[in-house]
Amino acid sequence: MKRRANSHLRCAGSGTIMKTNRHRPAIGIDFGGTAVKAGLVDETGAVLDRIQAATADIRARPAWLDFVGQCLHRFGDGRRRVAGIGVGVPGFTDFKRGYIYNLTNVPGWTRVPLAGMIKKRFGLSAFVDNDVNAFALGECAYGAGRRYRQAVFATLGTGVGGAVVIDGRLYRGAYSMAGEIGHMSINLHGRLTPEGRGGLETYVGNMQIVAAAARGLRTGRRSILRNLIKNDLQRLTPKTIALAARRGDPLSCEIFDAMADCLATTFASVTYLLQPEVIIVGGGVAQSGRVLFDPLHRHLRERLHPFFADRIRVIPAVLGADAGLIGCAALVFQAESG
Amino acid sequence: MKRRANSHLRCAGSGTIMKTNRHRPAIGIDFGGTAVKAGLVDETGAVLDRIQAATADIRARPAWLDFVGQCLHRFGDGRRRVAGIGVGVPGFTDFKRGYIYNLTNVPGWTRVPLAGMIKKRFGLSAFVDNDVNAFALGECAYGAGRRYRQAVFATLGTGVGGAVVIDGRLYRGAYSMAGEIGHMSINLHGRLTPEGRGGLETYVGNMQIVAAAARGLRTGRRSILRNLIKNDLQRLTPKTIALAARRGDPLSCEIFDAMADCLATTFASVTYLLQPEVIIVGGGVAQSGRVLFDPLHRHLRERLHPFFADRIRVIPAVLGADAGLIGCAALVFQAESG
Repeated sequence: MKRRANSHLRCAGSGTIMKTNRHRPAIGIDFGGTAVKAGLVDETGAVLDRIQAATADIRARPAWLDFVGQCLHRFGDGRRRVAGIGVGVPGFTDFKRGYIYNLTNVPGWTRVPLAGMIKKRFGLSAFVDNDVNAFALGECAYGAGRRYRQAVFATLGTGVGGAVVIDGRLYRGAYSMAGEIGHMSINLHGRLTPEGRGGLETYVGNMQIVAAAARGLRTGRRSILRNLIKNDLQRLTPKTIALAARRGDPLSCEIFDAMADCLATTFASVTYLLQPEVIIVGGGVAQSGRVLFDPLHRHLRERLHPFFADRIRVIPAVLGADAGLIGCAALVFQAESG
Repeated sequence: MKRRANSHLRCAGSGTIMKTNRHRPAIGIDFGGTAVKAGLVDETGAVLDRIQAATADIRARPAWLDFVGQCLHRFGDGRRRVAGIGVGVPGFTDFKRGYIYNLTNVPGWTRVPLAGMIKKRFGLSAFVDNDVNAFALGECAYGAGRRYRQAVFATLGTGVGGAVVIDGRLYRGAYSMAGEIGHMSINLHGRLTPEGRGGLETYVGNMQIVAAAARGLRTGRRSILRNLIKNDLQRLTPKTIALAARRGDPLSCEIFDAMADCLATTFASVTYLLQPEVIIVGGGVAQSGRVLFDPLHRHLRERLHPFFADRIRVIPAVLGADAGLIGCAALVFQAESG
């Protein structure tokens, strides 16, 4: 699907226009803990072709590089057609060096100079970034972030990811690891994890949402969730709970309200520190619509002085499941445009 | 006292050098809730002369402008010698417009186009910024921040102020109000204030520190504080408590430890979001030395993943009581250098 019929890649407001002269598509590779998705993406953000593999099947580095070879073979006639390869990974990276420090959920990917490995084997320019940075870049270039130059991104999933856009450019901090919203503490006495105490994602991760619903059901709360999951707690998912909330189920609405309040606590802190124009929320749960965003807006207003509450927007991401892919390709376009 | 014998104003690392050609000093005015301090500051950050008034005496706007006139008279022969006037105020400002939205502790200073008023009356260029931004600019140009391009500042006093430096420049956010570290929440269930719930400064403000010591003494805790304050709780100050802590007083050490842990909670969140090179801590309590910074470093390490803990410094500001004045003057030098 074509998104915009122009050859400019706009990132976060009209101030930074990335113009690529070559009109060649790029390969985006969204390297997730479960699946590795690759796509051929053109400069308008359209995904022209795609290919996918289970992470478990290609987890060894040689197999992973073979997968890249398959992509190149499938996406075009050899290496000439492609402008470069952008990879988004779930972990800490050094973007400048194209280097992976560590992937939390993929064993064997510690201290990997991935960009260099791709360049060496395929002779293509390659970029490696944190997956949420790639997502944010995609939304900035083609999605919900196009109108903004000061933006913060959050992705809701198993954990909570984040990214920061300052003056229309991704801000990676002094050592390339900035944007870890999910580890910001909302309770100094909260649960201890390797990342500290009371981090946001210990409250609002997918598993925490499901656990809260299971607790409610076990304590005998009436809920239409029982029907939706056919009384099998194993079937509980954030999506089911969102569906029940949309139908007015009190237990499910409470769970979304509590989650929204936790998110609002962090978003208020982010707003006090950076005062962005907008906070853009992506990931599965962010597609829940008003059952999430209505209480989120309300709680955020309660947690901010009006000077700040009146000047911040919180909106959903729009690129959906392809945001990662598209953002990875945008890493290439951005580099091409200087 | 001369700080550096050169005519360059360096801000946050060598990347941004502010070179002023005119070699004229500027007037810095630190507009506090208790006192208004004005100083003639040269480009090396040296305070050449100073004058002070009680805020209560010159609170009316005409009287305040008369005070500026006195400064000009005293600091030189008319308006020719001075490069401009920089004002730091304790409240929300729009830096670009030189406009004060509101001063929390000074009645009558709501919606004041102060820079315009100064320009009109004295024919001098004028700049108005939040006082903590001015402080940060001073420390960046002449103090603890000179070596850094990614820095976050915190000031400890009645409240907790903050400022953010990105790529060697003050970052004011989308609407000129960023940096409000003191309102970042460390407890989503914390005390309700007009700024939200559980903001850092509801835990570590000067009054909270004194109240914690008073509580300890009232419950009969043994402490050398009793001698230091001659059993008069009215004499308790953060400075006395710091003195007692330095002498090993267990109650006072506990109070500093708890305060350091609250600060560490916010500093960890700031580090996860922005990953600056350094967090620079100023204000009265920051002069307590190791009784503050030792537990602060320890708790921050507990609250960060090693990837982040290994890459963040927390250090005290160095310009002391003059940081505000000098920073206000630096607003002028910065503007001159473009």
